[in-house]
Amino acid sequence: MSFDQMWADLEPVGRDRRSGGYRRYAWTAEDATLREWFAGEAERRGLDLTTDRAGNQWAWWGDPDASPGLAIGSHLDSVPDGGAYDGPLGVVSGFAALDALRDRGFVPGRPVAVVHFGDEEGARFGVACAGSRILTGALDADRARGLTDADGLSMAEAMVKAGHDPARIGRDEQTLRRVATFVELHVEQGRALADLDAPVGVGSTIWPHGRWRLELPGEANHAGTTRLADRDDPMLAFASVVLAARVAAVRYDALATCGKVRVEPNGVNAIASRVTGWLDARGADAERVHAVVAEIADLVAAHGGVVEQESWTDLTTFEPALAGRIATMLGDAPPLGTGAGHDAGVLAAAGVPTAMLFVRNPTGVSHSPAEHAEPADCRAGVAALAAVVEDLAQ
Amino acid sequence: MSFDQMWADLEPVGRDRRSGGYRRYAWTAEDATLREWFAGEAERRGLDLTTDRAGNQWAWWGDPDASPGLAIGSHLDSVPDGGAYDGPLGVVSGFAALDALRDRGFVPGRPVAVVHFGDEEGARFGVACAGSRILTGALDADRARGLTDADGLSMAEAMVKAGHDPARIGRDEQTLRRVATFVELHVEQGRALADLDAPVGVGSTIWPHGRWRLELPGEANHAGTTRLADRDDPMLAFASVVLAARVAAVRYDALATCGKVRVEPNGVNAIASRVTGWLDARGADAERVHAVVAEIADLVAAHGGVVEQESWTDLTTFEPALAGRIATMLGDAPPLGTGAGHDAGVLAAAGVPTAMLFVRNPTGVSHSPAEHAEPADCRAGVAALAAVVEDLAQ
Repeated sequence: MSFDQMWADLEPVGRDRRSGGYRRYAWTAEDATLREWFAGEAERRGLDLTTDRAGNQWAWWGDPDASPGLAIGSHLDSVPDGGAYDGPLGVVSGFAALDALRDRGFVPGRPVAVVHFGDEEGARFGVACAGSRILTGALDADRARGLTDADGLSMAEAMVKAGHDPARIGRDEQTLRRVATFVELHVEQGRALADLDAPVGVGSTIWPHGRWRLELPGEANHAGTTRLADRDDPMLAFASVVLAARVAAVRYDALATCGKVRVEPNGVNAIASRVTGWLDARGADAERVHAVVAEIADLVAAHGGVVEQESWTDLTTFEPALAGRIATMLGDAPPLGTGAGHDAGVLAAAGVPTAMLFVRNPTGVSHSPAEHAEPADCRAGVAALAAVVEDLAQ
Repeated sequence: MSFDQMWADLEPVGRDRRSGGYRRYAWTAEDATLREWFAGEAERRGLDLTTDRAGNQWAWWGDPDASPGLAIGSHLDSVPDGGAYDGPLGVVSGFAALDALRDRGFVPGRPVAVVHFGDEEGARFGVACAGSRILTGALDADRARGLTDADGLSMAEAMVKAGHDPARIGRDEQTLRRVATFVELHVEQGRALADLDAPVGVGSTIWPHGRWRLELPGEANHAGTTRLADRDDPMLAFASVVLAARVAAVRYDALATCGKVRVEPNGVNAIASRVTGWLDARGADAERVHAVVAEIADLVAAHGGVVEQESWTDLTTFEPALAGRIATMLGDAPPLGTGAGHDAGVLAAAGVPTAMLFVRNPTGVSHSPAEHAEPADCRAGVAALAAVVEDLAQ
């Protein structure tokens, strides 16, 4: 089962015909199809499939309890209308790396797993890296079960529908004991490698980042009969927040984005009764991110609204010795800091020695149907991953 | 069947339990229930039910083809999370006025109808007063059939599902010939009558008003890895438009509202690829409305977007002689101009002698679950409507 064949099998799953982007959300029918695909790839290679308490899938080469092992992999879910590479490239490259090693007769000295983390993007329930966070306990099981999607369905209910027992979820000591090292390969989501003319880079840090929900109340009223002076229109407050977030991001040399909004009742001739906006903020250090969020919180409060932190991840530094060893092994692959959260960051924060490989993205575009990586760079990624496994699991 | 009983029968139809507001949209199951209710009220009174080519319902007292008649009524549909009074008050008051006249032995000298206009709010297909506009030909039948809802379903398809033949729709000469005069009773959607301490007012004009769709393109990208300088984020353009619309409305002493927005893909950590906003603009004359829209169109164009006019209604002046006669009859009820469109405005624009009665709204709140009218004022409205019918149909 070649890289190209695996890629082709995944290509139609959850793809929206109009946008050309992917809509692969946690605990949906598309998610079930992705899980079946993963199980099929494991079976095809004679790997032992296990599912941890959080619902993440592991395909083990060798007895996972014989000695602490090496895991490689990523996620398969997507943001709304996301690209094909963000996530799946790491899982497909994981299987392809094992195939390459077997082809040249490599026999691992310790167990090696390809892992599929669920719900990395948090597109449905609002918390990113939910699969890895439940696994490590960074996301409390009760809180996870109570998260709701846009239709008001809880994660617990969605799990039941998908056949996963929500009572099982929580920190999974047995699975964590099996993972001595985790290496995640991921498409780059910026243009650093393109600028450096390098096909593969090695992760150094993940910027501090978080999500905040901004609740802006107003008063529903008729757009044609309510004097301007009599209005309490939360759309104006939201507009101020969107622009202020950009200004604050520039001021503090950080990133701030309002990419999602929900308006009630969302009628052309009705002044909104409530606007819920979301702020995504990131930066090289926590201080500048908090400075951005504090400015926005002040503005929201001035409009009578409230800000709720939905998630926060502090600066993650991948183990320098491991990153250095991998960079040297790959012929001085350049180090790369990133503003994107990853399951690798969650595992690193939980104390698992962790590294990341990034594959060049020629345009830097990600979270978009236009996301792309050249086939030659994908092959370079597989070769790099195979070299890392050969070194770390010999 | 008293006013109170009719009100109680309508109360649960299309009511959202969470918001307490109404979601009664054209050609839906809720719309069918409202049509059944109307047919039942007609039958209970021995009135002859007819449905015109546009799907509007008429309950006739007397042979509608014997001589040109008088119609009273309004609509039953709602904006998203609308109130109970906007529309239904006019229909229920129409039946109640007939009941009052019959109770006192009145026999009309010409046919009298209670009318239920469909799809007045345009909440589903984006064009307000679609029922009366199709009836008069102000909305072209082909354009109406091709309008689509948020799910991409066309009005023609929705009509088929609801059992109305879309091939039938178009200007309905036979129905229009029957209507010599139309009087619409409606809850006021501002606070003018409250300020004047009057339970009932008489319509003088409807302000020019329209709707514009603003298409703002951008480039989808990752919120955590895309430098601010590399972004093309249409949410920023939308925010500028929202604030500029308010500034322009103040400058030209007009009304401008952005109450609806659609964001793609609408993900927390994805820079939007496209934002579609809507502008509702109104004013005492067309010049000031066009001045507001021109400013917004310039701003949208500067962001690479386009503006599409979805609807436009010029100044409507209700027949002064008829309005004067009604005002005098009601003991010098005050004249009232309004920024809200109504089916009465559509019929007036088509040359039908038309008048409006407004019932006091103590808070002025409308298009909201909080919309209200006091029972005593509703009774005053019914009495006024009965007096008008007695005078005009004697």
